[in-house]
Amino acid sequence: MSMIAISPILDKQGNQPIYFQLYKYIRSQIEAGLLVEGVQLPAIRQLALHLGVSKNTIESAYQQLLSEGYIDSKQRGGYRVLPLEELVWPITEPDGTDNYMPATVTPKAPLSNVRYDFQYGDMDIERFPHEAWKSCLVDAVSRRSSDVLGYGHFQGDVELREEIARYVFESRGVHCKPEQIVVCAGTQHSVSMLCQILSLRERRIGMEEPGYSGVKTVLRNHGCSISPIKLEHDGIHVEGLYTEEVQVAYVTPSHQFPVGMVLPIHKRTRLLQWAIDCDGLLLEDDYDSEFRYYGQPVPALKALDTAEKVIYMGTLSKSFLPAARLSYLVLPSRLMASVQSKLASYSQPVSPIIQKAVTLFMKRGHFARHIRKMKRIYHGKHKAVTVAIQRWMGEFVEVIGDRSGLHLLLDVKGRDSAELLQLAERVDCRVYSPVHHWNNADDCPPGYIMIGFGGMEEAQLEDGIRRLSEAWFGCKS
Amino acid sequence: MSMIAISPILDKQGNQPIYFQLYKYIRSQIEAGLLVEGVQLPAIRQLALHLGVSKNTIESAYQQLLSEGYIDSKQRGGYRVLPLEELVWPITEPDGTDNYMPATVTPKAPLSNVRYDFQYGDMDIERFPHEAWKSCLVDAVSRRSSDVLGYGHFQGDVELREEIARYVFESRGVHCKPEQIVVCAGTQHSVSMLCQILSLRERRIGMEEPGYSGVKTVLRNHGCSISPIKLEHDGIHVEGLYTEEVQVAYVTPSHQFPVGMVLPIHKRTRLLQWAIDCDGLLLEDDYDSEFRYYGQPVPALKALDTAEKVIYMGTLSKSFLPAARLSYLVLPSRLMASVQSKLASYSQPVSPIIQKAVTLFMKRGHFARHIRKMKRIYHGKHKAVTVAIQRWMGEFVEVIGDRSGLHLLLDVKGRDSAELLQLAERVDCRVYSPVHHWNNADDCPPGYIMIGFGGMEEAQLEDGIRRLSEAWFGCKS
Ligand SMILES: Cc1ncc(COP(=O)(O)O)c(C=O)c1O
Ligand SMILES: Cc1ncc(COP(=O)(O)O)c(C=O)c1O
Repeated sequence: MSMIAISPILDKQGNQPIYFQLYKYIRSQIEAGLLVEGVQLPAIRQLALHLGVSKNTIESAYQQLLSEGYIDSKQRGGYRVLPLEELVWPITEPDGTDNYMPATVTPKAPLSNVRYDFQYGDMDIERFPHEAWKSCLVDAVSRRSSDVLGYGHFQGDVELREEIARYVFESRGVHCKPEQIVVCAGTQHSVSMLCQILSLRERRIGMEEPGYSGVKTVLRNHGCSISPIKLEHDGIHVEGLYTEEVQVAYVTPSHQFPVGMVLPIHKRTRLLQWAIDCDGLLLEDDYDSEFRYYGQPVPALKALDTAEKVIYMGTLSKSFLPAARLSYLVLPSRLMASVQSKLASYSQPVSPIIQKAVTLFMKRGHFARHIRKMKRIYHGKHKAVTVAIQRWMGEFVEVIGDRSGLHLLLDVKGRDSAELLQLAERVDCRVYSPVHHWNNADDCPPGYIMIGFGGMEEAQLEDGIRRLSEAWFGCKS
Repeated sequence: MSMIAISPILDKQGNQPIYFQLYKYIRSQIEAGLLVEGVQLPAIRQLALHLGVSKNTIESAYQQLLSEGYIDSKQRGGYRVLPLEELVWPITEPDGTDNYMPATVTPKAPLSNVRYDFQYGDMDIERFPHEAWKSCLVDAVSRRSSDVLGYGHFQGDVELREEIARYVFESRGVHCKPEQIVVCAGTQHSVSMLCQILSLRERRIGMEEPGYSGVKTVLRNHGCSISPIKLEHDGIHVEGLYTEEVQVAYVTPSHQFPVGMVLPIHKRTRLLQWAIDCDGLLLEDDYDSEFRYYGQPVPALKALDTAEKVIYMGTLSKSFLPAARLSYLVLPSRLMASVQSKLASYSQPVSPIIQKAVTLFMKRGHFARHIRKMKRIYHGKHKAVTVAIQRWMGEFVEVIGDRSGLHLLLDVKGRDSAELLQLAERVDCRVYSPVHHWNNADDCPPGYIMIGFGGMEEAQLEDGIRRLSEAWFGCKS
């Protein structure tokens, strides 16, 4: 077994922890193909000696790589490089099943009056399996039984809940029974239901700062008081949950929204420990975990939740279709007995027709196929946008949180987003400021711009970024 | 112009007010065809003299008839009998447009394991225009534009809101712009949205007692405190809103749920006056106003709301399809400015596909046709169930609130609902107790049974009531 050399240049006086520098170095080696699948990493003790750092430092770096799916640990010790996901779904994989279309120019939303709208949340209309979805919907509406005509089960169609249970297990490592699942009408509705059935009003809720304003609004409007918990370079400052004495924490561990980091394993463990120590509840919003461009998928926080402290929230808006308006909760079974009667006095808000159509879409394998396809396509778009940014904007910007998901942040150094938005409109582009995700607008760095790339074609992304660069920095190619 | 004689026997010592006895007498004369369309009622002063009662008494009786659409008042004074609605849509009217089916035995919901389930909320599967709805849904899903694939407008599809605005004006006299409408995912969701955007938590909300538990639950779970306001024979005791010092009142004026009276015009005026006096807000739940079996439709409370104190709540569950899971709010325009930004931070919970399909269904005239048809059909069912009750149960029961809607209450004298439910199961029937609509279970008369008749065929209703009678009273035909 060949040993490999790991010799990063570590900045011991820098403001990034050493373990983080080491983790980033190894990750970049893997992504660059210099450390390939199957290669064994040096033993912890050996590498610590070699680099002159503590064993803890090496351990932390390895754990982070482990949690992000770059490496795995073997039974008899030792860590081995895993294949990159892109190898599993190569960009060139043929796909004849769902009317796959060439990357033409998407007809934009009639609502959007600009040429390129970098709106987060837009979907890829061209690659959506319209025919498969339509035939599932037609089959659903053709059933003349009361389960697709009446109110339906208050927790949601039982077959749909079975499909969701299978999916969250296979893709996210979440073990649950269909009885623990509640179908909801979008993430905000999921959160509102939690507020109602768990009486969260007047509770103190910790939220990552910045954090998803869509959820913050709902919690506020239910009368919860929100304690912003600051983010560190690798995610939520877990100690903040103790000092702020929160009872519930809303977190986005798989892909922090909007900043984009993946919560490392040691912080996940500490989050769970906090919930045990303080009898707290964790609300895990796993909104876009399907789309990860480097490393293996990271299992959900819920997958580690042996103490049943985590409520898992999923949505079909990113993985399938915003217009399904379908999300779901996975409740810990220990809570089911106490909330069952509260749940039962609500009628289900999602149309049983939509639920049945989604069920058929999943049962017939379209859903799994679609996600596989979209991973590849979003990976391509992600590459296109990051390459274009590097090419056209280079040193003018810093790219933040670009390792997964359907958006990234740009920090346009020394500039102000209001001006940048205006300049963008002049070249027929629309970009957004993420400022409303900060509790206090002043804390949002002025040059932050949110770039959603899910709804645009690769060529549009390239051209759009070029135009932005021209508008912002006056560079001509 | 012929004057007609009105000579009721009035019980001046009875516990029903005299105006009410007079109103009931005239109503029965109209329904029996003894006072026909166009006949002019005696002048108030004349009739007061004739019956030896005050002019106020006559006035109140006429106002009640007016508000329930039995008579209208002419410009130059005088009251005239209106045609009964059943004449407008006679039971024998041919209907070739929507695959109308003969009254066969409906295949029951697979969930229901009894032969006859008198569940309130069940729909008429046989008479639903499946093909028209399916083709609207197919057309909706075939559009590949982002307005049916993405999140859609936060208040709901603008075309749908235009259709709803037209509908509530034409059928309910409610004047509004599409901008005042918010599409929601069922009445409970409508109420939850109101709680969230108007910060109703900790507010004191008046509710009719008994009142709809589905809404009570939602208000409670939002932290509102509920003041039960007692019902009088003709609806909510308006003074209770003053003495309980409530800030908001949830009411069902068109058809009190679950007891079934129609709120008379003078009480409507007093409700509106209360809102003006106390700066209160009225939440009008107009859930099943389409189905009224005697008299003309009563306009909505919102139609009288010149002071903009009423929030109108509608739903498609009774008039169209529970599985649409689509309801709507009409907000007073004076509130729009203040709630707009709160509303805008919510994403719409109803699938744009469903919204577009409903829009097409309305635009193409299917909705109006369907309602016309169902008025006739539900009228037939209503007749079948009331005739059967009279025939098989006669003096053993009192029928309550049987003048409109899709349910009625039976008061089975001297018996207990728990026993009645059990006995019903023995003859393969299921009936329900309405007890959960009372704040305090002890206040619900023990013999009350709720009979929903929307989902059963006329023949089933007849046979079901016969079986219930056999089980409860041991009568054999
Ligand atoms: C953090 C986060 N959670 C959830 C969602 C998805 O919300 P929904 O289920 O309403 O589409 C989003 C999308 O905007 C998001 O950014
Ligand atoms: C009083 C009342 N309001 C509203 C509804 C309809 O609720 P939804 O819109 O959820 O179907 C009902 C039906 O049960 C009802 O009885």
